[in-house]
Amino acid sequence: MSRAYTQLEKKFKRTEVLGEASAMLQWDMAAMMPKGGAEARAEQLALLATLQHSMMTEPAVADLLDEAEADNDLDDWQAANLYEMRRTYTHATALDEDLVEAMSRATSTCEGIWREARPNGDFARVVPALKEVLNLSRQSAQAKAQKLGCALYDALLDQYEPGGKAADIDPIFARLEKFLPDFLQSVLEKQKGKAPIRPSGPFAIEKQEALGRKFMSDLGFDFDHGRLDVSAHPFCGGVPDDIRLTTRYDENDFTSAMMGVLHETGHALYERGLPKEWRYNPVGAARGMSMHESQSLLVEMQVCRSDAFLRYAVPHMTAAFQGKGEAWNLENFIRLYREVKPGFIRVDADEVTYPAHVILRYKLERALIEGDMEIEDIPGAWNALMEKMLGIRPESDRDGCMQDIHWFDGAWGYFPTYTLGAMTAAQIFDAAQKALPGLDEDIAQGRFTRLMDWLGANVHGQGSKLSTPELLKHATGKTLDPEVFITHLKKRYMD
Amino acid sequence: MSRAYTQLEKKFKRTEVLGEASAMLQWDMAAMMPKGGAEARAEQLALLATLQHSMMTEPAVADLLDEAEADNDLDDWQAANLYEMRRTYTHATALDEDLVEAMSRATSTCEGIWREARPNGDFARVVPALKEVLNLSRQSAQAKAQKLGCALYDALLDQYEPGGKAADIDPIFARLEKFLPDFLQSVLEKQKGKAPIRPSGPFAIEKQEALGRKFMSDLGFDFDHGRLDVSAHPFCGGVPDDIRLTTRYDENDFTSAMMGVLHETGHALYERGLPKEWRYNPVGAARGMSMHESQSLLVEMQVCRSDAFLRYAVPHMTAAFQGKGEAWNLENFIRLYREVKPGFIRVDADEVTYPAHVILRYKLERALIEGDMEIEDIPGAWNALMEKMLGIRPESDRDGCMQDIHWFDGAWGYFPTYTLGAMTAAQIFDAAQKALPGLDEDIAQGRFTRLMDWLGANVHGQGSKLSTPELLKHATGKTLDPEVFITHLKKRYMD
Repeated sequence: MSRAYTQLEKKFKRTEVLGEASAMLQWDMAAMMPKGGAEARAEQLALLATLQHSMMTEPAVADLLDEAEADNDLDDWQAANLYEMRRTYTHATALDEDLVEAMSRATSTCEGIWREARPNGDFARVVPALKEVLNLSRQSAQAKAQKLGCALYDALLDQYEPGGKAADIDPIFARLEKFLPDFLQSVLEKQKGKAPIRPSGPFAIEKQEALGRKFMSDLGFDFDHGRLDVSAHPFCGGVPDDIRLTTRYDENDFTSAMMGVLHETGHALYERGLPKEWRYNPVGAARGMSMHESQSLLVEMQVCRSDAFLRYAVPHMTAAFQGKGEAWNLENFIRLYREVKPGFIRVDADEVTYPAHVILRYKLERALIEGDMEIEDIPGAWNALMEKMLGIRPESDRDGCMQDIHWFDGAWGYFPTYTLGAMTAAQIFDAAQKALPGLDEDIAQGRFTRLMDWLGANVHGQGSKLSTPELLKHATGKTLDPEVFITHLKKRYMD
Repeated sequence: MSRAYTQLEKKFKRTEVLGEASAMLQWDMAAMMPKGGAEARAEQLALLATLQHSMMTEPAVADLLDEAEADNDLDDWQAANLYEMRRTYTHATALDEDLVEAMSRATSTCEGIWREARPNGDFARVVPALKEVLNLSRQSAQAKAQKLGCALYDALLDQYEPGGKAADIDPIFARLEKFLPDFLQSVLEKQKGKAPIRPSGPFAIEKQEALGRKFMSDLGFDFDHGRLDVSAHPFCGGVPDDIRLTTRYDENDFTSAMMGVLHETGHALYERGLPKEWRYNPVGAARGMSMHESQSLLVEMQVCRSDAFLRYAVPHMTAAFQGKGEAWNLENFIRLYREVKPGFIRVDADEVTYPAHVILRYKLERALIEGDMEIEDIPGAWNALMEKMLGIRPESDRDGCMQDIHWFDGAWGYFPTYTLGAMTAAQIFDAAQKALPGLDEDIAQGRFTRLMDWLGANVHGQGSKLSTPELLKHATGKTLDPEVFITHLKKRYMD
């Protein structure tokens, strides 16, 4: 292997290690930092980001990439590593510094206005700032599309979903859009009159935490390599050897924090299972956001909301909180964790209605980036689509187009990964069930080792060696097939 | 002011911000990190240190320093800042890379062996590794002495105590050495038969923590700019806007963790009171280790072990733990926090015997660095001095020359700052009492604002503008005078 390739590995290791330092500081900011530390922390993170960017874009990197790409001696992993290095370099160098700085200023202004205007649903107030963010996002899309040789929207999508194409997403989402409305009606009809009972609290935080830790450990989370803490917005942060999960407890309802912990545990197990021998290399990182989301949703939706998991978990929940009465029956918990209800808020949505929230946003953000729509058109278009897809119409933009931070913060192109992740999860879990006879019984017994080993070998340990479609094919025998997800929904909600 | 000076401020800001990122990661390592995160954290910290060092030593810095030093337009703060920049640069560039790397390897090897050999007091086992550390420390001292134009030992001392000189320390320590043995005998005689009673536990950790937080807040610690957590070795870390204190609780004894928290609070208030307008500049940093230790000891020894403070604190302690009986009398707590008892272990020593521990180490480390003694001579010399100064002789080197990490870790030249700090604390508190009539009554009422404002104006807010002797003169009217400390001891222990 060439000197150039070896040099690149060294250089990328430094940027990865800097990125890991930032990740720890970001976790601290969300989970530990007192508010008075914000300014100093911003200085630290900005400097680390600047250093990382300038390491990545130094002229020598371009020469080394060219030289290494002429090297025929690389094995599959090295070649994939080099491919990812090039992709990272292209994103890092696609935008000139003025644009990067203007974007940073525009998004931080816009996010501030959004935070103030959201409680009153005052969309008009955020329009000028959001126009500026969209304008700069379109410029970014143009610059990146040119360098990557792809369509405008795909250039933004590529930041979260490497190699992702709207042309591939369209038919998949179209299939869901066709299936879901009637299906939703059938589910609502079937669930009518069978409302679950919410166990009534209070549920002590320490007990909720202990229960969460127990489930995390059983699923395979290693507390020698991670922590569970509290933050306003739950996330999975840290680094593969030291994973920092957070959650948010509600004394009156343990069921939602518990499922949140299990969701983040799915992300954590993916990070922890990344190939150790490729630590600090781009090929050693998780494949992309849809694959990452698939791992959290595989744990949450496929495993932990299944009958089998609840057979294992409900006795532990009951023991932890000394639950008594009808609310603590297995059947009630199954109903509770399967309740389908069209609502305005994406993050509160169930598995059946969630795709509608995503498809709506995907359609609008594409039209906005491609210039087929303007900021002022958002509320009307949002509400019309909401009504069409879920039969409900928000009274305030607070519960409509102002609910998510993404656009105001410049994260255009992110939304589709949620639903791609849900579908990928269904497909991977289906393959795991076929490969591992008796898996359901394992889960009902609280034994997750065979599943996690299988995921480790077929998904986690592959890092970014394969493209997302290749990885899915490697794990399941085919690329993304919406029918698997649809079958899952039918089986879970209509059988 | 010159372009060169402005450039230097920018460059030093970057190194300071990197240092702050490291400080946060170090706090996390001690207080939060699971053990499996150690390797990744070592990578992060090593990279940040390397980047900081290479920023500091890039050739442009030398030119900028020369150019700025020819600038006559700098005000006092800027000139002091430039002076500190030069000092930092000199330390950073004094050692060639081979020596730095050899030292890093030698100390980490030696520390590892020390940790294993210490429980058995097996000094012979650590001799070869410690010889190597000493050898490299002598080489460092030589290289730095040449650049700084000072004596060998002073070159090491300068790393912790900028501008400190053994020639200044010698007469001060000689005065203490003369005073203390007879004084100790008198105190022991006076305390005979009046042993304090230890309140008996258990004392719930949450209650200990709540009490510590209350005292911290009353003293002026702002929890919007800091935290209190737990670590194996208590310390004050973080950055001036986000100070991370740690302590270690014992369920059977709250008195020691409580005093530990108060000690670290003194460090914290110093950091928090550093001049905001000089953040991220060398002149904005704390003056040196003796001044830093003086601020923790001022709070712990001068304020919190005083009758006045205990009058305020004992009722809170009693209420927190529902204390009853003789052990909870004010008089008993005064006896408890004033108990003098010669012992082997420095960190457990009282105010009267502590200087003996330091003077012993100072004498030995000077002789070792100056080549007047060799590693094999340490145990004999240690035990002889211990017997001479405190009348006791450790049975094992575990309780003798192997108790402290400093030498094994390469921190030669650090020890004198502890006792210089104790004396400085006495002198500053004496000046504060003279400047603030009724201060004792304030303290007895739990009112610390006047004292902290005075310290802020006269010490904390001065940063590193003045040298240590100048700063002490600025705050108290004179340079370090051992008689003030001696008077304090006489008053507290013999009146």
